[in-house]
Amino acid sequence: MQSPISTLLGIEFPLLAFSHCRDVVVAVSKAGGMGVFGAAALSPERLEEELAWIDAHIAGRPYGVDLIVPNSFSGKGEAPAATAPQVPETHRQFAAQILGQFDVDAAGLDHAMSERQSFGDNMHDEGAARLLEVAFRHPIRLIANALGVPPQLMLDLGKTHDVPVAALVGTRDHALAQVRAGVDILVVAGGEAGGHCGEVATMVLVPEVAAALDAIGDTTPILAAGGIATGRQMAAAMAMGAHGAWCGSVWLTTAEAETNPVVKEKMLAASARDTVRSKSRTGKPSRQLRSPWTDAWEAEGAPRPLPMPLQSLVSEPALRKVDKLSEGGHEGAKALATYWVGQGVGLMNEAMSAGQVVQAFKEDWIAACERLNGFLGE
Amino acid sequence: MQSPISTLLGIEFPLLAFSHCRDVVVAVSKAGGMGVFGAAALSPERLEEELAWIDAHIAGRPYGVDLIVPNSFSGKGEAPAATAPQVPETHRQFAAQILGQFDVDAAGLDHAMSERQSFGDNMHDEGAARLLEVAFRHPIRLIANALGVPPQLMLDLGKTHDVPVAALVGTRDHALAQVRAGVDILVVAGGEAGGHCGEVATMVLVPEVAAALDAIGDTTPILAAGGIATGRQMAAAMAMGAHGAWCGSVWLTTAEAETNPVVKEKMLAASARDTVRSKSRTGKPSRQLRSPWTDAWEAEGAPRPLPMPLQSLVSEPALRKVDKLSEGGHEGAKALATYWVGQGVGLMNEAMSAGQVVQAFKEDWIAACERLNGFLGE
Repeated sequence: MQSPISTLLGIEFPLLAFSHCRDVVVAVSKAGGMGVFGAAALSPERLEEELAWIDAHIAGRPYGVDLIVPNSFSGKGEAPAATAPQVPETHRQFAAQILGQFDVDAAGLDHAMSERQSFGDNMHDEGAARLLEVAFRHPIRLIANALGVPPQLMLDLGKTHDVPVAALVGTRDHALAQVRAGVDILVVAGGEAGGHCGEVATMVLVPEVAAALDAIGDTTPILAAGGIATGRQMAAAMAMGAHGAWCGSVWLTTAEAETNPVVKEKMLAASARDTVRSKSRTGKPSRQLRSPWTDAWEAEGAPRPLPMPLQSLVSEPALRKVDKLSEGGHEGAKALATYWVGQGVGLMNEAMSAGQVVQAFKEDWIAACERLNGFLGE
Repeated sequence: MQSPISTLLGIEFPLLAFSHCRDVVVAVSKAGGMGVFGAAALSPERLEEELAWIDAHIAGRPYGVDLIVPNSFSGKGEAPAATAPQVPETHRQFAAQILGQFDVDAAGLDHAMSERQSFGDNMHDEGAARLLEVAFRHPIRLIANALGVPPQLMLDLGKTHDVPVAALVGTRDHALAQVRAGVDILVVAGGEAGGHCGEVATMVLVPEVAAALDAIGDTTPILAAGGIATGRQMAAAMAMGAHGAWCGSVWLTTAEAETNPVVKEKMLAASARDTVRSKSRTGKPSRQLRSPWTDAWEAEGAPRPLPMPLQSLVSEPALRKVDKLSEGGHEGAKALATYWVGQGVGLMNEAMSAGQVVQAFKEDWIAACERLNGFLGE
């Protein structure tokens, strides 16, 4: 496909797959797209292992790495706060109460900071620099940042290693700030996306950003993200000014994904209405599969979610226990189980391998293009 | 353009323009699309006048009428509740306080039911039947319902007069209910739409509904709505399974529109981020241009908006006064002024006539189609 994304990344089909699962990364790259390994929460040691595995299995195909590095990053090392913040008793009790209503025992849940230490470290200078160092030791073909303008170190490393730098944006103004900073690819993500997301929908944000770049004569290529789970949506986004697509949710139900099987089944059955944009998982708005867990946090009288990263100390230990019990067949836990997913879940109705998803995207893309031409009688 | 919508409605270009302004209706129909006159809040006498004016100016081009008729409608006449509900003092005071902060005097605002009598009447059997009767006396080519499954009377009148019946839907399941009820056209409206709207984004909802219809072998044509303000978005929606587009917001900034000029200027300057989906205007979630008025209702500690139709008795008199003062140059009122608009406002950056908008849509549609073909190197 003749897209600047294909040229820049050396891939056949400009479909990028964000995934925490190395098998998905490998499968998508082998099928002609590009897997992007989500490494934000990993320790440097673990990232090294995972990338080595990918290198050994991907047959030389290009792949990328996605991190969450704050712009305030200076590369000079500023240690995390010495005293870890605490989870208030109200929030612990509220979580325990939801679990209790579904016969899940909240005893023994560890809401302490250590649980999320790697992620916390990675958000600070030292940790982020270590992850970047590991990533650039491998033959990555893309480095992506999911949090604001990438720090200069990331941009510099990209330039030195001839690796394009991508950045996620949810508004027109953030997109303009990113191109001013010098990113090579914009991932323009609408509010229907799974995980952390803004409010502007993909249908509007993509043409809005494309028009804003046109107006300043900028040609940074755009990957559309948010709600995209089919080739026809990818084609639609490209008709509006994108040069390819970046998808996360659609891989969660693939055979390769390590998604909780209970959640996989829920996702395959869900409609687009079955997600909610809520602060209840991380403290910032993120889109998730609705379950009695998310409903309880959205209900009248629920405590206000804590700021990041405290809310994760409430939700993660609870939801990890829920996942474990649900996989063992615990009915209450099965009801509560949830995970991040976008509205595109309404279009994810069939269990497929990641390679099959890429193939389905290609065929659906062509069919959409033919459908559009058909309106002109051609 | 070869679309079942063009064939069914006898129009050249399957772009429908919802507008409360008769001049917009006429201009769009004359330019090859179809104007749909929003008549939900009018008295039968006023509707008669407006449609007579349209008939006299539209040169025989097809046009439609949009109503809000509840399904519970029986055609047998059930009078509105005898005792009109009252606006609580807290809400009156909160509105007055916002106005006061912007030097707008709230004295003399009439929060009584009479203000909204026509709209209230039209939501009941007698009133709705009278409006339908007026509409079908004119050579309309489409009747649309913006509230749930149309009542049998509307479907029957459509059949008798050979006028297609369209219905707005915001979810897949509502779409399936509508086709079971026998509507002729689905207006599939995403959450980025102005006015009352659901939560599922156009980018997901359009292919989700198209797939659901395919699965049951139904061929009801789809108009995509929600956030669409350009031809490239219309093409995108049609690549995903729609057969045309239904737009409301984009006409608000046209020369013909009777939009408050202050609000027009704000809309032309706004980005897609400058809207909010809020219950503060009608009691149900509707998308509006953000202003200190909507911000105040969204803020911590604001009273919860009243249920429909009570909240309108709070907001409409206040915002009508704001409109009037702002047009006279009152700075506080100019700051507060707002109106319903979708996220597509971020793409409405140039003052045009309605006919120019239709022409721009056509050109942009073709360009989008060419862009998409270009990725295949054709």
